[in-house]
Parts: sequence; C-alpha cells; structure tokens
Amino acid sequence: MSPRSDIKIPSGAQIVTLGGPGKPFHLHSGAHLPQVQVVFESWGTLNADASNAILVCHALTANSHAGSAPGEPDGWWEPLIGPGRVLDTDRYYVVCPNLLGSCYGSTGPVEADPRKGVPYGPTFPEISIRDIVEVQRVLMQRLGIRRLASVIGSSLGGMQVLEWGAMYPELCASLIPISTAVQQTAWCLALNAASRCAITGDPEWREGHYEHPPKQGLALARMIGMISYRSPQEFAGRFGRALAGEDPFDPNCHFQVEKYLRHQGAKLAERFDANAYLTLSRAMDRHDVGAGRGGVSTALAAASMPALCIGVSSDIRYPLDDQCELVRQLPSAKLGVIESEHGHDSFLIEYEQLAQLIGPFLSLAADSKEAA
Amino acid sequence: MSPRSDIKIPSGAQIVTLGGPGKPFHLHSGAHLPQVQVVFESWGTLNADASNAILVCHALTANSHAGSAPGEPDGWWEPLIGPGRVLDTDRYYVVCPNLLGSCYGSTGPVEADPRKGVPYGPTFPEISIRDIVEVQRVLMQRLGIRRLASVIGSSLGGMQVLEWGAMYPELCASLIPISTAVQQTAWCLALNAASRCAITGDPEWREGHYEHPPKQGLALARMIGMISYRSPQEFAGRFGRALAGEDPFDPNCHFQVEKYLRHQGAKLAERFDANAYLTLSRAMDRHDVGAGRGGVSTALAAASMPALCIGVSSDIRYPLDDQCELVRQLPSAKLGVIESEHGHDSFLIEYEQLAQLIGPFLSLAADSKEAA
Repeated sequence: MSPRSDIKIPSGAQIVTLGGPGKPFHLHSGAHLPQVQVVFESWGTLNADASNAILVCHALTANSHAGSAPGEPDGWWEPLIGPGRVLDTDRYYVVCPNLLGSCYGSTGPVEADPRKGVPYGPTFPEISIRDIVEVQRVLMQRLGIRRLASVIGSSLGGMQVLEWGAMYPELCASLIPISTAVQQTAWCLALNAASRCAITGDPEWREGHYEHPPKQGLALARMIGMISYRSPQEFAGRFGRALAGEDPFDPNCHFQVEKYLRHQGAKLAERFDANAYLTLSRAMDRHDVGAGRGGVSTALAAASMPALCIGVSSDIRYPLDDQCELVRQLPSAKLGVIESEHGHDSFLIEYEQLAQLIGPFLSLAADSKEAA
Repeated sequence: MSPRSDIKIPSGAQIVTLGGPGKPFHLHSGAHLPQVQVVFESWGTLNADASNAILVCHALTANSHAGSAPGEPDGWWEPLIGPGRVLDTDRYYVVCPNLLGSCYGSTGPVEADPRKGVPYGPTFPEISIRDIVEVQRVLMQRLGIRRLASVIGSSLGGMQVLEWGAMYPELCASLIPISTAVQQTAWCLALNAASRCAITGDPEWREGHYEHPPKQGLALARMIGMISYRSPQEFAGRFGRALAGEDPFDPNCHFQVEKYLRHQGAKLAERFDANAYLTLSRAMDRHDVGAGRGGVSTALAAASMPALCIGVSSDIRYPLDDQCELVRQLPSAKLGVIESEHGHDSFLIEYEQLAQLIGPFLSLAADSKEAA
C-alpha cells in the first residue's frame, strides 16, 4: 500500500488533533474514527469578541492553501484573500481547513489509522458532508471562534456552506454558497458514478489496496469531471476543432481539447489520491440537506441568516436556475450572478466578479450586525 | 484476436460486395480498402422510375435493422417504418445500410481483411463520414436507385445526411438531419475523447489486438456517452436520488441512476466491438462538412433541396440552437422541434412527434416534385 507520501501538505499549514483515547469522533453513518487530525491555514487575526472569522470551504480536490503568507506560493483563492482583498485579512480572520477524507493532511484514506499504524486506504469509513462540517465546527471551537462572520465555498464547498446553515445557524452570521446544490442532482450522480468507474476499472486499483497509484483511472475520472467543470461555449471558443498535430487521419493525432483534458487528468493523478477521490465523491453524492430533516425546505428554513447565493451563467453542473431556486428556499437570501463562459469552474477564474458580489454583501452583513 | 463472432448480423439482412480485385475502395485519408462489403435491409419496393427510396442513416452503435419484416424482431425505428407509417413502405422503398467501420456485417474492424484472412482489428484504416456516405452511394447505385426521395438520420446519422447534401445534392430530393452537427463540436470532442480513453485504458485492450473484448472499458465509454444522450431533467424525473439498495453509507449501494448507467454500459459491451467503437468515434470527431470545401456555409450552399432539420428541446449533446443555426445555413430548410425531456436520444423515443414532423414534410416534398 502506498501512503502517497508524494502528496505534499502545504508548508504553512497547522495541524490539530481532535478527539483521542476515549473520545472517538462519531460519524453520520454510525461508525466512528478514533481521532481526527485537521490541517488548516489561516490569514489575519481573530478579533476580541471572536466574531470576525470567515470559514472557506474547499471543493473536491483542493486543500487548505486558499491564500498564502509572504514567501509561500499563491493559494487557490489568492486574489480573494489578503490585506485589502475581498476577504480582507486586515479585517477578517480567514480559515481554510483541509476536508475530512481528503489527502492533504486531514484524516482520510492516506493518513494512518492510529489503531493499526498503517494508512486507512479503502478501509477509511464512509462519510457525509455533515461529518466534514462537524470536524470544521470542532476546529472552530478549538480556535476560539465564537461565531463565523461568514461561511463561503463553491461546489462541494457550497454543500458544506448549506450544511453549516442547517446544522449550526446560530454559529453563522452569513452564508455564501456558490454554484452548488441542496442535494446532489441525478445528472451529477451519473457523472460521479462514471468517474468512480474510471478509477475502480484501473488495473492498478486492486480494491483500493494499491501498491502503485491507479493514475490512469484517476486521470480519466478527472477528464470526465472536466467536461462538466467547463462549458461547451468555452471549449468551442478556446479550442474549437484545432488539432494538436498535423494529420487528422492519424489516430494518435488528438484535437487540442483532448490534449487539454489529458493534461488536466495527468496533473490531478500526480497530486491526488484515488481512495480520497472516491471517499469525497461518494460524500458529495450523499449530500441532501433535507435528509432526516423533513425535506429541503424545512432544513433551509433554519438558515435565516443573510445569504448570498452565487451562480454562473454557463454552469452546466450546478446551473444558475438551481441557484435561483436556492434563493427562493432560503429565508434571507439574494442572488449574485457571474456572467462567464467558464462554467462551473468560474469560481477559480472570475475573481473580479466574485469580489464585486461578495464585497458589498459582507459590508452589508457587517453593518446590519452593528446596527442590531 | 477475437472476431467478436458473438455479435449477430440481423437475420433479414442482405450483403453486397463492392469493389474487388483491381477495384479497391479509395478512402478520404488516401488509404484504400481492397473491397467493401455492405450489409443492408430494405422494406417496400423501388418504383418504376427508381425515385421513391428513402435512405436511413444509423447512429453510432445501431445496425441495419431499423425496421422489420413479418416474424422478425422489431427494428430500432420500428414505429416509423412500415405500411401506413411515416416512412410508408406502401409508398417508399426504405433502405438502411450498416455503416462502414461498424460491427454488424459491413466492412469494419471485426470483418476479415481479405489480404490476410483475419479480422482487421486495429489495423482497420481510419475513415471519415464521407467514406461512409461514399459506400452508401455505391450501394444505392447497385440497387438501381436513381435518386433518393429523402436521406434521414440522427446524430452520427445526421452527419451522413449533411454529407449527402454536400457531396451528392443531385441524388437527394430532400434531407432530414436530426439532432446533429455541421462539424463535431469541441464539447463532443471532449466527451468522445473520454469515452475512447475508457476503452484504451481497459487492461484487456492490448492496443486493439485483444483476445478477450475490453468489455469493462466499452461499458464505461457507454456510461460516459449516456450522460449526454439523456438530459439532466430526465435523470431528475426518472431516477432522482432513489437508491438501488438500503444503506446509503454502503459504498456498494448505488443510486438508481448509477445502476441504470452500469446496465446500459454492460448491455452495449455485449453487443458491440471496441475497435469499431473507436473507428466510428474518431470518424465522428473528424466530421466537418466545411473541410476542404471553403467552409461550412459554402459546403451547405450546395444542398439546396428541401430540408427538415429536427432538434430536441432538451438535447445537451447537439443543442436545439445548433439545429436552428443549421436551418439558417441551408438554402431551403425548415425547423422541426421535438419537445421532450429525453434529450439527444429522443429520436429513439418520441416517435409520434417525429412522425408529425416528417409526414407533412415528405408529402410536401412529393407534391412539389409532382408539380415541377
């Protein structure tokens, strides 16, 4: 079994351990983990009344490195996090934990099962978005945060935002779910199912007990994902029918768009773990904010704090219409629209539009809190 | 090498051989085939002036069995082909040939290379839609058809229809392209690329020289395809988030939509050949009606016969907007819209709507011909 020791935890990350002997972490499924380790990064300073924290919830394959400290490589949300930026670290204490079940330092399939001293691998228990949020809540408590000024995230990150609103409304002053779903949709269940088949069909897979990572399968899973992360318009404009070679009748002469997908697939296969991918993919599929709460509407009725729901005009994975429906279901939500051809992945590209939507919302939320 | 002798040619099919010693079949690529065998089925009778034939062009994984004779199993377009049906065999001579490169009897990877006496397998040359159409034209000639009353097909079939209009306008009295593209789109190039990676990533693949068919890879290729053949709306309404088991935390408890995809994948893997899939998938990707003809508009300007372009409201693979654009580019085309949530595959489901669109169009085309 490879622990994927080649996957590096961001250098500026901190690690805390939650639970431990006699204090296991109980999971949504009924199973438990003997202890949970959380890797996180933070920028800015917690204020005196511990109310200026913003929790950044990352998506499927990201990590805690949303922003950066001087000298570190840029974070995946670098243009949004820092002094004077929209998540202004002169004003807010911004925290981004790596998700439970991921492979960037928090407890997950690549980390050691403390009972056995070897990585969990495929024996890592099945988790839900609620488990991911529960770990984040215990971390927030440990960091001394009284109440979150906001919880923000896109895609799988947005699922966490909605669960925060349903599970702990009293701990969130505001929510910013981006390009997400109240429950995983049937079409995304289909896409995720195909992606998982790509991994489990790799000859290196060996039921998850692999010696050599099933990189080919993970790369194909990413290729399948990318088809829904970007938009037909973007592919048409960016690649069209351009060839990456000379002879269109050479079966190895790929179109540029195929070359791009293969490159994206190979890149992910180098930096992510297949068991972690499967764990988080299944957790996404289980996501249903209404489950066990009398349905979606009842669950969301609890989330009465101000919310800004952001959608992207060209998102085919979690379409803008679904974000509009979310606005109608949340008690105090407004819609923000990103006009872009970059599709679902616009949250990693359209920084200016994001800042223009998020900035005024956070100011207003802060003002209304001061007035109250 | 397995010739996939388990794949059955429809029992009512006829076989003709085109070319032969000294008369090779020249391909678009510059390569050639020593001879070409075509399997086809037909229903109805050719009239005295040999002008009542309708050519049915099938899509990626279909075969010649579009209709049926008494006692045969139903064809894949059964409700449209027969006495009194919209492709009325009391009136028309309806012909459906299996495509060059397919695996249902026409020359392709599973058929024997006459120079070697063993199946072509991965040595089958690369082809284009124009080659498929050229084979059909020679077959039409052999059958004594002077001029086609109409050429009809959906998806890859529609690509053939457009090529007929560009290559042999004088041989087509009308065209009915359904849910298709003037050139393969970048998004479909991406989908097809992922599907092909699924096949070539199967450990049984062996560069196409397989002893055991790479069924797992072919099944996954089909799963990836199905995600675009149907629509998010259909998946939502038909499957929603229904589970195929009891325990949502059991990693082997699939959602119904995943079970459906796996079933569709397994079914195709039993009845189709992987080399043929790759051959036709790459031919689709090469499709560009404007290539070598001064662009799409110039190429389509030649197709001045009446055309009925049919699109489906929920088609995400070849969207309705693209069919509207096709109508604008063809000299004498009108649009027919199928309102359906079944997406791209509606041409195999919405028979009543198809008949209501095609019937009046064929009558009008016949009337205008008689008046002329």
